Amino acid sequence: MSIDRPVRRLTLAASIVGSGVSAKAWNWPGTKWNRFADFEHYRRSAELARSGNLDAVFVSDHPALQRDARRGPGHLFDPIVLFSAIASAVPDIGFVLTASTSYNSPYNLARRLASLDAISGGRVIFNAVANFNPDIAANFTASGLLDRDDRYRKADEFLEVVKKLWLSWDTPDGPEPQGPLWDETTARTIDHHGEFFDVRGPLNVPVGPQGHPVISQAGASAQGIDFAGKHAEIVYAALLSKQAAHEYAAQLDAAAQRHGRPPGSIRLFPGVNVYLGDSRAEALRRHEVFSGAENEDGLIAAFLTQQRSFNPAFPKSIDPDIPLKPEWFEPQEDQTRPIGFSKAVQDLVRIEQPSTREIVRRVGGAGGHRLVIGSPKEVADQLVDWWADGAVSGFNAHFPLLPDDLERFVREVVPILQAEGVFPTGYDAPTIRGRFGLPEPTAAVTEEAA
Amino acid sequence: MSIDRPVRRLTLAASIVGSGVSAKAWNWPGTKWNRFADFEHYRRSAELARSGNLDAVFVSDHPALQRDARRGPGHLFDPIVLFSAIASAVPDIGFVLTASTSYNSPYNLARRLASLDAISGGRVIFNAVANFNPDIAANFTASGLLDRDDRYRKADEFLEVVKKLWLSWDTPDGPEPQGPLWDETTARTIDHHGEFFDVRGPLNVPVGPQGHPVISQAGASAQGIDFAGKHAEIVYAALLSKQAAHEYAAQLDAAAQRHGRPPGSIRLFPGVNVYLGDSRAEALRRHEVFSGAENEDGLIAAFLTQQRSFNPAFPKSIDPDIPLKPEWFEPQEDQTRPIGFSKAVQDLVRIEQPSTREIVRRVGGAGGHRLVIGSPKEVADQLVDWWADGAVSGFNAHFPLLPDDLERFVREVVPILQAEGVFPTGYDAPTIRGRFGLPEPTAAVTEEAA
Repeated sequence: MSIDRPVRRLTLAASIVGSGVSAKAWNWPGTKWNRFADFEHYRRSAELARSGNLDAVFVSDHPALQRDARRGPGHLFDPIVLFSAIASAVPDIGFVLTASTSYNSPYNLARRLASLDAISGGRVIFNAVANFNPDIAANFTASGLLDRDDRYRKADEFLEVVKKLWLSWDTPDGPEPQGPLWDETTARTIDHHGEFFDVRGPLNVPVGPQGHPVISQAGASAQGIDFAGKHAEIVYAALLSKQAAHEYAAQLDAAAQRHGRPPGSIRLFPGVNVYLGDSRAEALRRHEVFSGAENEDGLIAAFLTQQRSFNPAFPKSIDPDIPLKPEWFEPQEDQTRPIGFSKAVQDLVRIEQPSTREIVRRVGGAGGHRLVIGSPKEVADQLVDWWADGAVSGFNAHFPLLPDDLERFVREVVPILQAEGVFPTGYDAPTIRGRFGLPEPTAAVTEEAA
Repeated sequence: MSIDRPVRRLTLAASIVGSGVSAKAWNWPGTKWNRFADFEHYRRSAELARSGNLDAVFVSDHPALQRDARRGPGHLFDPIVLFSAIASAVPDIGFVLTASTSYNSPYNLARRLASLDAISGGRVIFNAVANFNPDIAANFTASGLLDRDDRYRKADEFLEVVKKLWLSWDTPDGPEPQGPLWDETTARTIDHHGEFFDVRGPLNVPVGPQGHPVISQAGASAQGIDFAGKHAEIVYAALLSKQAAHEYAAQLDAAAQRHGRPPGSIRLFPGVNVYLGDSRAEALRRHEVFSGAENEDGLIAAFLTQQRSFNPAFPKSIDPDIPLKPEWFEPQEDQTRPIGFSKAVQDLVRIEQPSTREIVRRVGGAGGHRLVIGSPKEVADQLVDWWADGAVSGFNAHFPLLPDDLERFVREVVPILQAEGVFPTGYDAPTIRGRFGLPEPTAAVTEEAA
């Protein structure tokens, strides 16, 4: 099978994590406080995303109860269960499914993702994460805490196994076979014996509607970028400046080429935190309120407190109107916070030298994604600006309050993108590969296995 | 929370594994040959089961591609993914979800099952299996093949961890809490440190609509029965004679009492293979054809071949009309076939001394469950006979061809059971605990954890 590569167009996903990305979302007036554990809430968000022709919905994952009891849990239901339940209830919408390569077995996860890809008709993106968090490790006996190199060696082997399993059993969807249902040419053991895993195969789910699920990755350490160069088809990233996006795309291209893949193999897909208002002033005000700040000074105070807790080099006192310095934001090798969020801030400071007053409107919420604040037209313009420039394939959008702000985005921003001809008015392909213009993996890996 | 124990009534589940239980099902004329990988097929079966008010649908599981390529795979999609997708598409129907305690991590599986129990409104039965199969072990590195004692020690610890996790976080479904969303009184670490697992907890999914999923078990070895006595609320079993069912129920009661549980704590729920015809003659004929036999002599020949391959003590030649002897059916300690199927045949032979000609109409298909063959009234009578006698709660029914034979059962047999007042005409409780008259586990285990 092969697909025609479609005309390049903007791709969009929406995070549907819990009550929304803002710390104030879970008990916002009018919100059901335990909405984070209400399946109908997730289904409604997925339906809204579909009504705007969004390509996919996204959940992050944290297989431990988060310790900050003053805000709603980041995510709760297992993503595989949640998305399977949504898949049969909501057509078309894709799923960015985050799962750990440290705390799953490759056979089980390959089978679960292949099952969902088959059931959903090719709508799965596997967002592979190599967890590094002591709270998570404490729930998973044997695996324990590995250092970053070991985690990525394990993640690399995990992906090798999973990809081989996904292409290990071909059942042509044709007439009834004469003779046995499969033989050695259609179902092949993979006989993998590696440092972390021994897996015989074949998988007991046949090759799926898009070959296999699309592989996404998010880690921004040197090891993460190398892993992306080898395995990722989509990279989800924190990028706060257009130039940083170009630099990151170039790094990914170089990493892909080191692994024998052509440049442009990877779709760069940064996160954005969208604050929408009827006017820019209203949007700025919503940003302050949902961040828990009274006003801009409150945003500044919160930013300074946060940076001082993250960065030992950050000054104890600072004038909020002088340019920040990149050396204040050096990531720590042993930090449990994703390194990409730290690097994103450092890159923004290096490239654009914002003041504290400026940077609080550029980064915030959901760890530290790019803030996109304004009227519907201003939000659309900020998205199209980066996309038209060629650095990114599209965006994973986070919203302060769900489903309200997603609904507003679909109603007010998506039509502008459609009118400008950068975003489709209907689903232009049934599978994620079709929508992102990604090739089907069947041929290459089958040859390798032969 | 507590529930009123309902009036005792028959419980029924339907196996929806692949194309049906008969070896001939996958390429039966008129059947789509690769229906085993078609989600719509499973959804349709679940909808049919619901239209008959059946309590649940069931799938077995085998996380490896089965080696006999001359018949359709026993089961394919991961049960968690399959049932999650059905849960949001088909109301009411419950799910007997088979999953391995050898090849899952307790935190992940506890979370996945709790997620599905929450999403489905309390419709999950966890059928815990301690796999023993080299084909499966070869797909799961580290765990490898344990002997039976080790597997059951691991299964026991697995269940201990899972049950503690399921009750580790209470979120009352009331008004918004004042102050933090949880604290030490509502979210408790379990701090489990055992032979196989170290798990801190708490689980990041709150206590569910029926406390936690109902626990089911199927292993019939001495270790399996002890495990059932400690953990099981439902036991799925191969039982071929009414007296054997009484004996098994007594064994389970004794095992439960050894673990401090009252007699009657466990619902016995044997499998049946239903062959339905307009007349008994037609039903017998369908049994022969779906078994791949030309006639009764063919059934006899197949039975003898099979028994000789299973049992070293089985005679090389035999008159099909003399009584069989139990010593010919002694289970082998190292057999990979479930021991319950061997013991069921041996018990039937011991209790009723059938001839070969008689036994081929008593056991067959799906490993070796009780055959229930006849007209709709005869099938209903055979089910009610055992149930009215008090030994069993109900049955897990297997059908030769899906969905056709399930549809026929719902249309022709269920109305007879309803007319006799032994089976409900609508769903009498939203949760599995309500339908099976099982208590909610919250209080007891919470005290233990306190």
